[in-house]
Amino acid sequence: MTELSPRLMRQMDFIIEADKLKNVFRRSFISDQSRRENDAEHSWHLCLMTIILAEYANEPDLNVLKILKMVIIHDIVEIDAGDTYIYDEAAKQSQAQREQKAADRLFSILPEDQAHEYRQIWDEFEAAQSKEAAFAKSIDRLHPMLLNYLAKGKTWKEHGVAESDIRRINGSIQHGSEDLWGYAEHLIKKSVNEGLL
Amino acid sequence: MTELSPRLMRQMDFIIEADKLKNVFRRSFISDQSRRENDAEHSWHLCLMTIILAEYANEPDLNVLKILKMVIIHDIVEIDAGDTYIYDEAAKQSQAQREQKAADRLFSILPEDQAHEYRQIWDEFEAAQSKEAAFAKSIDRLHPMLLNYLAKGKTWKEHGVAESDIRRINGSIQHGSEDLWGYAEHLIKKSVNEGLL
Repeated sequence: MTELSPRLMRQMDFIIEADKLKNVFRRSFISDQSRRENDAEHSWHLCLMTIILAEYANEPDLNVLKILKMVIIHDIVEIDAGDTYIYDEAAKQSQAQREQKAADRLFSILPEDQAHEYRQIWDEFEAAQSKEAAFAKSIDRLHPMLLNYLAKGKTWKEHGVAESDIRRINGSIQHGSEDLWGYAEHLIKKSVNEGLL
Repeated sequence: MTELSPRLMRQMDFIIEADKLKNVFRRSFISDQSRRENDAEHSWHLCLMTIILAEYANEPDLNVLKILKMVIIHDIVEIDAGDTYIYDEAAKQSQAQREQKAADRLFSILPEDQAHEYRQIWDEFEAAQSKEAAFAKSIDRLHPMLLNYLAKGKTWKEHGVAESDIRRINGSIQHGSEDLWGYAEHLIKKSVNEGLL
């Protein structure tokens, strides 16, 4: 056996550390309502949505590979910082600081060039300014709305979420994709009609 | 609200159907041994490995976006066909037929152009001939080996898997990446030394 390079060992250490994302549970239930969803599954579902729905981005010529890198690593910081519920205003106050600290620790497990690359990609996602980040954010907002609709509004009811909250928080979907906002409106309408909201 | 296009509805139907992958459980345990891993989490972990480890592919100039599309959808057929354990020779006999049938049903939920694109990508992965498929297969083999090592060989012990089985089944890692095969050999050696195999 040849000697393993320190570079490969650091990369594998990051991949091993990332396994913990499977134990970070979100508020959303999976569609059959049997249990809550974890961040690893959520991130996979965003990857699938990205490749299938990229054509609906408001801006043309998106770098789909970059969006995928974003959604693959976007929740990694929650290994240390935990999941912050989007409708929990108190937890959201400390969220940025907790997540910055987590990003410092986690990305630095990688070799320097990749630590830099993925920290930049995560920062870009958080800033939500580039066209790729805007689209990734749209998908990240639409996904829990879809699951909550499919799970009969279970999480919305648990937390007393109203239609106005949903419109306020998720209006940013429109920033990445008018078409996906159209679908979100369709979900909101159906949720109201079915008494889920 | 504008009328939603039939195209978008089919795409969302596929994304909704894909949620079922979160209930397809594999033999491998997650690294803390608390429970078995499901296909959605596994697929996410392969995405992460792909972007971090693509530099180790034997062949140069890989299309990383294509590899990601492969690993995102590679296990989707298991929604209908179930997970087939790599060391279960009896189940492997009927696997191809069950999975072809599943692919026929699942990809046809998508609009025709995407149904065609993703069926082709899945077929290419299964054939394991292109350089992208060879690398995706390497990652798909290395991942459970890594988890089983981290979970103290729990699955190997349950199924009486020996070092020779592991070498026979996972030698194909070498086909996609000599370097990752080097890491796999390192895992096998450690597993033997620690009495996990």
